[in-house]
Amino acid sequence: WKTAKSARDSFSAYNSKYLTVPQNRTSWHRSGTNGALEASVVSYRSSVSTIINNYVEGTQTRARDKASPSGLYFRDSKRKVDYVLAYHYRKRLARHVPGAASPEPRRGFASVALVSNGSTGKGLPGLEVVELSPLDTLEEARRLQREEYERNLLEAGLEIEKDPENKSQGVSFVRIHAPWQVLSREAELLKIKMPTKKMYEITEEKGILKTLNEIWCKLTEPLQPQVPQQENTKMKTLSYPFSREKIYLYNIKDKDTFFDNATRSRIVSKNNISLSSCPEWDLLVEFRMGFTGNLLYQEWARYGVFYKFQPIDLIRKYFGEKIGLYFAWLGLYTEFLIPSSVVGIIVFLYGCLTIESDIPSKEMCDQRNAFTMCPLCDKFCDYWNLSSACATARASHLFDNPATVFFSIFMALWATMFLEQWKRLQMRLSYFWDLTGLEEEEVNLLSLEWLSTTNPINHNISYCTVLSHLLFYVFCLQNEKEKLTWSDRMPGYAANFGLILFMIMLAFSAVFGVIVYRITTAAALSFSTNETTRSNVRVTVTATAVIINLVIVLILDEIYGAVAKWLTEIEIPKTEKTFEERLILKAFLLKFVNSYASIFYVAFFKGRFVGRPGRYVYVFEGYRMEECAPGGCLMELCIQLSIIMLGKQLIQNNLFEIGIPKLKKLFRKLKDERTEVKEMDTNQSKDPQQWDLDYILEPFTGLTPEYMEMIIQFGFVTLFVASFPLAPVFALLNNIIEVRLDAKKFVTELRRPDTVREKDIGIWYNILSGIGKLSVIINAFVIAVTSDFIPRLMYQYAYSQNGTMHGFINHTLSYFNVSQLKAGTQPENSLFAQEVLFCRFKDYREPPWSPHQYEFSKQYWAVLSARLAFVILFQNLVMFLSVLVDWMIPDIPKDISEQIKKEKTVLVDFFLKEEHEKLKLIESFIAHDKQKRRSGTKSRRTRAASFSQCHRSPKGSFTSFSSQHTVV
Amino acid sequence: WKTAKSARDSFSAYNSKYLTVPQNRTSWHRSGTNGALEASVVSYRSSVSTIINNYVEGTQTRARDKASPSGLYFRDSKRKVDYVLAYHYRKRLARHVPGAASPEPRRGFASVALVSNGSTGKGLPGLEVVELSPLDTLEEARRLQREEYERNLLEAGLEIEKDPENKSQGVSFVRIHAPWQVLSREAELLKIKMPTKKMYEITEEKGILKTLNEIWCKLTEPLQPQVPQQENTKMKTLSYPFSREKIYLYNIKDKDTFFDNATRSRIVSKNNISLSSCPEWDLLVEFRMGFTGNLLYQEWARYGVFYKFQPIDLIRKYFGEKIGLYFAWLGLYTEFLIPSSVVGIIVFLYGCLTIESDIPSKEMCDQRNAFTMCPLCDKFCDYWNLSSACATARASHLFDNPATVFFSIFMALWATMFLEQWKRLQMRLSYFWDLTGLEEEEVNLLSLEWLSTTNPINHNISYCTVLSHLLFYVFCLQNEKEKLTWSDRMPGYAANFGLILFMIMLAFSAVFGVIVYRITTAAALSFSTNETTRSNVRVTVTATAVIINLVIVLILDEIYGAVAKWLTEIEIPKTEKTFEERLILKAFLLKFVNSYASIFYVAFFKGRFVGRPGRYVYVFEGYRMEECAPGGCLMELCIQLSIIMLGKQLIQNNLFEIGIPKLKKLFRKLKDERTEVKEMDTNQSKDPQQWDLDYILEPFTGLTPEYMEMIIQFGFVTLFVASFPLAPVFALLNNIIEVRLDAKKFVTELRRPDTVREKDIGIWYNILSGIGKLSVIINAFVIAVTSDFIPRLMYQYAYSQNGTMHGFINHTLSYFNVSQLKAGTQPENSLFAQEVLFCRFKDYREPPWSPHQYEFSKQYWAVLSARLAFVILFQNLVMFLSVLVDWMIPDIPKDISEQIKKEKTVLVDFFLKEEHEKLKLIESFIAHDKQKRRSGTKSRRTRAASFSQCHRSPKGSFTSFSSQHTVV
Repeated sequence: WKTAKSARDSFSAYNSKYLTVPQNRTSWHRSGTNGALEASVVSYRSSVSTIINNYVEGTQTRARDKASPSGLYFRDSKRKVDYVLAYHYRKRLARHVPGAASPEPRRGFASVALVSNGSTGKGLPGLEVVELSPLDTLEEARRLQREEYERNLLEAGLEIEKDPENKSQGVSFVRIHAPWQVLSREAELLKIKMPTKKMYEITEEKGILKTLNEIWCKLTEPLQPQVPQQENTKMKTLSYPFSREKIYLYNIKDKDTFFDNATRSRIVSKNNISLSSCPEWDLLVEFRMGFTGNLLYQEWARYGVFYKFQPIDLIRKYFGEKIGLYFAWLGLYTEFLIPSSVVGIIVFLYGCLTIESDIPSKEMCDQRNAFTMCPLCDKFCDYWNLSSACATARASHLFDNPATVFFSIFMALWATMFLEQWKRLQMRLSYFWDLTGLEEEEVNLLSLEWLSTTNPINHNISYCTVLSHLLFYVFCLQNEKEKLTWSDRMPGYAANFGLILFMIMLAFSAVFGVIVYRITTAAALSFSTNETTRSNVRVTVTATAVIINLVIVLILDEIYGAVAKWLTEIEIPKTEKTFEERLILKAFLLKFVNSYASIFYVAFFKGRFVGRPGRYVYVFEGYRMEECAPGGCLMELCIQLSIIMLGKQLIQNNLFEIGIPKLKKLFRKLKDERTEVKEMDTNQSKDPQQWDLDYILEPFTGLTPEYMEMIIQFGFVTLFVASFPLAPVFALLNNIIEVRLDAKKFVTELRRPDTVREKDIGIWYNILSGIGKLSVIINAFVIAVTSDFIPRLMYQYAYSQNGTMHGFINHTLSYFNVSQLKAGTQPENSLFAQEVLFCRFKDYREPPWSPHQYEFSKQYWAVLSARLAFVILFQNLVMFLSVLVDWMIPDIPKDISEQIKKEKTVLVDFFLKEEHEKLKLIESFIAHDKQKRRSGTKSRRTRAASFSQCHRSPKGSFTSFSSQHTVV
Repeated sequence: WKTAKSARDSFSAYNSKYLTVPQNRTSWHRSGTNGALEASVVSYRSSVSTIINNYVEGTQTRARDKASPSGLYFRDSKRKVDYVLAYHYRKRLARHVPGAASPEPRRGFASVALVSNGSTGKGLPGLEVVELSPLDTLEEARRLQREEYERNLLEAGLEIEKDPENKSQGVSFVRIHAPWQVLSREAELLKIKMPTKKMYEITEEKGILKTLNEIWCKLTEPLQPQVPQQENTKMKTLSYPFSREKIYLYNIKDKDTFFDNATRSRIVSKNNISLSSCPEWDLLVEFRMGFTGNLLYQEWARYGVFYKFQPIDLIRKYFGEKIGLYFAWLGLYTEFLIPSSVVGIIVFLYGCLTIESDIPSKEMCDQRNAFTMCPLCDKFCDYWNLSSACATARASHLFDNPATVFFSIFMALWATMFLEQWKRLQMRLSYFWDLTGLEEEEVNLLSLEWLSTTNPINHNISYCTVLSHLLFYVFCLQNEKEKLTWSDRMPGYAANFGLILFMIMLAFSAVFGVIVYRITTAAALSFSTNETTRSNVRVTVTATAVIINLVIVLILDEIYGAVAKWLTEIEIPKTEKTFEERLILKAFLLKFVNSYASIFYVAFFKGRFVGRPGRYVYVFEGYRMEECAPGGCLMELCIQLSIIMLGKQLIQNNLFEIGIPKLKKLFRKLKDERTEVKEMDTNQSKDPQQWDLDYILEPFTGLTPEYMEMIIQFGFVTLFVASFPLAPVFALLNNIIEVRLDAKKFVTELRRPDTVREKDIGIWYNILSGIGKLSVIINAFVIAVTSDFIPRLMYQYAYSQNGTMHGFINHTLSYFNVSQLKAGTQPENSLFAQEVLFCRFKDYREPPWSPHQYEFSKQYWAVLSARLAFVILFQNLVMFLSVLVDWMIPDIPKDISEQIKKEKTVLVDFFLKEEHEKLKLIESFIAHDKQKRRSGTKSRRTRAASFSQCHRSPKGSFTSFSSQHTVV
């Protein structure tokens, strides 16, 4: 072992002598990860991470940033680095093959690396004795694949630069430069819209709207992020899909800067994808250049600027349209939460203010009423007085009041409005980001290609399991022959169906488990002889159960995320888009069930299958089904909802999103340092290159988790809002942090992701819209069934003697003749036992003295009818209003649709003008030529003719040809 | 007067001498309509009407048709007539103005007419005495406008040919020819897709699908119309928006035939629209050429071929995409009615078969049960035995049975399926008709232009009312200045809102009127002493009331159509599309209310506000509210629905669609003949030109009435299908006729309409989808509330002693103590009076011996709860299933989406290949040139150089310039 190590050391020392580049340029950072199968994406972020790390140190950083712009160029300091690929290598413990000592540098590229490789083979003959291990074979195969890939890149016209592989193992980077020919060709192929020379004025609002707009701008000035605006916000540059034929149309000042960095890297990455065919995907790491994100950090990615609007245009410029849309969406959602929070608080305050005037809770708290309630458990529980539940009744009124009904309707319309506004904002962004012409098909076509070549590389799925590896290879092989048939897909679909069902069952059984826990623990605690234990049974049980629920939800959430991914992989979807959609759908379905199952149970099932005194429903040999607290089920729903929502937000946000990445980074750093110390690299310069710095960062793993978190929160805000009007407030508070948290993560913690052009947020919109629709029916049921709204209304207008709520409590309680309690279930040691003839319980049943004793009373059915009628009315009314709102608000803002029309007209005019000018130029040439010819026919015949030929030729070659003849 | 007439005669005789064209060419048909404001559109139909008129006469017609193809050309027999404008003229009873005797022919066009005009002025000086009447002034203004318009046409590059105006008044035609320059320019501007040289193969289905497809084709062969198919159905020509720059791409054999007639006339008509600015719209008649529709008549527009599929491609070729889509939609709808008819018949048969085993109707008919019912009217009605209503009970079972519930669910899903399939078919047609790239904006842009110029001409609205004239002029004037402001539009909107509300109220009051009629007539008839009258009261009243309803519906339908049009006009919508959409929405709203108001009343309100014996609800001083027949309200709903549906179909189809046009034509013909005789035109040849024949036909007034009729029918089929499962059958029968009826009308009775390119059926789809959604909730209520389904279910599973239906009738009838009948309401002359203590009535109320006598009983509330629960369950289940179906069926058929992708690839390949060939050609030229130069440098220096310059110039002018220098 020692020999090998020292050999490696001397080998690296040797290597350093042969380096063809100055030391301060070839320095790099080596990642110490040993997992050869790890696929990671390094994204280039133009010193942002450096800047941020040093931000507190002041201006020094910025000076440094400016001082080394050369980091973004090839060694010739001319060619821009547009993309960087990284790979792990592990030097073969070189076996000398006679005759192949100095392999021919392949087509002249990557000669640096090969030269050093070759020299290694020659320079260290002592290593010949080392056997070729299986690991080496793998490494060799990978190298060949890599070289094949590099060759493809060169063939596509890209230029590459490599670092020498001068260590026994480590990370090496391949930097790619796209020359003008490639850029212009690909831009034309991808129909990328580029700015033309033409600017046009954006029609402004007039009259009152303009004044209002100005006032709004002035008022919100401190909230605007201080980013450099376009010089002229009233003008917009006309963009047109790039075409080499019409190159004169575009505003090309410098061919090196015409395509901005985002576009350049996009072009290169598209090229990478289309060129690779089942490539050595676990070796290549995609990696990109960009422009400074310093500004983004200052004006967006700090908690200090939480009150400011987001600089969406800048975000889009830096991260691309897809991430730009996410933050725009998140911003709009957060803004929309403000009015709903305000209304929510008002509703809550209304509850607080009316609590004193609420007759039912007053009656309940009134000691004089003395409703003797039936015992809550068999044998060990005593009769109890309703006034002891006074506190919960009062608390319950905070959420269970008529304002809640109004709030539910408000929130349903709010959801519709939000979706409509989002459609409009999306349209507006499409217009300003020049996405209006972006065809859906374009993406599909690329995906089709992607299908046949590079299925899973593109979204950095860690294909770590053996199974998925196998599947991937099978897929690649099959794909080369033909499409997958139905029978190939069948097992995948079957597995999907089965596993999803199983997972949903798992979530349900988790909920059921908690119910069992509650029932048994409550029963066990009620046996307790300790008086304080027994008095706090309900509180103890509820609190612990909810916490258990929360923990289960959090754990299952993680499991479900992984399961959804795996399930989608074995389904082998055809295109990247399909993959993403199916993954999202599955993950959403599972996480939705997981998050809401317990809440659904409390809302609609808890306490509905209790039975009645004398005929309770028993489960598990003698445990009575659980009842709701005396304050009503709505109170319990509220507690359940708030704890799960807040707990999920706090724990997932703080622990998972901040803590774990920090830990990971720390861990990685420690490990790296250890490796570094071990290698004792003498070449390591103190000033690492940008790609080295970025390579340390976590790879970007897609927006799905971010969206998912928000969508589940949207569910909490809308689905059960009738039971918890403060949900929007907490969501708002969370999101104000979330925006900056995500921003910080994207800017400083993650490698910069590939810019992806997207016109919309895709399937998330459908999910949001689905939740919005579901919320209507759920809220209808919560109000009708869970809350006491309908019984109160019914009492007031149908049963009350004087139209007031007096006597409501008495009306909702049925009588039970205690002598009919089953033997063995009567309370032992009762304090009341002697005086109690009838105990009361909450239900509408016939009294003991009725001929149909304990049957549901007429009131029960009447109230039920009213409840159901309310559901129908509420659902259809709200649905109708939603449709109306949807229909009234046009999907495309009026000014944008006018602008788009205008742009078209301007475009046509511009084209015609350009054509006209070309024509005029030609004409003037001809005229000029004729004049010249006339004036100097005799003296300068030949030269004038030759001049005219060159410039007139586009018109008609025949004319110039014949004129030549006459001249000659 | 006599002088004037003779003068006119001699004038026309004089005129004939000066005619510059042979007589047999200048003959035309003059329409005798005097209404100067009438605007009509003549569409050209290439002898179709002639053919059809003579079809029975055999082959002679076809020979004639072929003999005179010159009818489609200008007089030079070369230039095709692409469009014909027609106008009424009325010769000025010429007043000689000295010095202006021979007005200058304006820019040389229409010189024929002007020459004859001028010569009139000179040749008939005797007419100077005639005063210039106001009519003449108007005529003169119109002439000027017309000339302005014609000048615009000429300026746009179109060529026109006019007939001389050689009668005192009549119709004159302006024929328009579009030369190649205009066609190619406009085709490029309109981005019309034209076939390129490239064909590509359509991927066929494989395996089982192919076999199935072949079997299907073979089976349906006799049903296929015998029209010439594309030679090669497996190949499709690649189309690409026409571009003059890339002219080499297209398959141009002959510039005269490259653009087909439909495209040519479309281009001309677009030109017409864009050129006219507030034109003399009541004078110009648009008019078009086409190709023979003989085949269409034989294979489509006859009742004899009712069983055949429609030749959609041919229809589209002849009538354009918009009408093609209508017939495709109608065809699909009719096909979809087949399965629903079958299921409907099965459901009906199920009812028939189970009628004997239905216990409730058996019990009702059983004489032994002897339920003595309370009297149906005060004083004059006697107690009656329930068994007398046996027949209606049995009939009611036919529609009110459990199969109906299944059928409702089926129909809701059917509607969703239909809409999904339509989306797919639409997509398929778009693909094969090359509409896939057709942009929405294109239409909008044109509309915007249309807004500023020619608002209402384009859809042949008869602007006959003075008000709309005024508005139109105001609009034109305002438009020239600026856009209409909000305050300009306000009155229009207010009028709209008010009038629509009023119209809806009108429909409601009509329904209410019929109710009043029923109540009062029933009361009046029950006073009658005639025994037979009294026994048939119900039948008489119901029958007459429904007929009155029907008549009102038919009358209001016509009124509402006109009102909707007028209302949309005064709203002054911005674009043509908006106009159509708003018109449709308004008309639909009004006609929907009109058609369904009475049905809604019977379904949900009739018999619900009757009160109870002893406390009936009275209206109009002593008339009791009407009850449903003893068989249940569903029976009455069924009768109401079937009569209105069938009546509407029969009367609107037969009377309005066949009868009235025939009458109109007859009337017109008679009038024409009269005028002709009066004029005694000596020039009239026996062989009229095609445009003369077509001018007689009715103008095309849009597809709105056709769609509207079908949509209202779709409503009948889906909305209340629970009450009338045979509705789809009747709809199917109607539609089989309707397709051919419409076809015949379009081919033979109407002028051929402008071809309009449309991608979809627009707002109709939304209306259909809305009806589909509404039908879910309505059917839920019909089943739950109107039918006896829920009470039966409840009885069977909750109240019945032995789980059977025995005793159901008794259970639904409440008791009433006859002694509690109010004084004066007891039956006079009762046959039962002595023996009756309690009478029965249909309701769930407490019996007289209960403490809460006559209150709603517990059963009432329980049944109500069940009903409402059913509504919630049904609505949400069906909605969920619909969403599922919608989601499962992709909107774009898989083969089509693949085909579209393939087309894109083929297109790119084709382009690249063409470019490559061009490049190769240039290269070969250069090579050739070089060779030449090399071989003959010394002898033919100058010529070779000049040759090379001409052909190399696109590459770089500088090179050729310098080379020239060296050569010289």
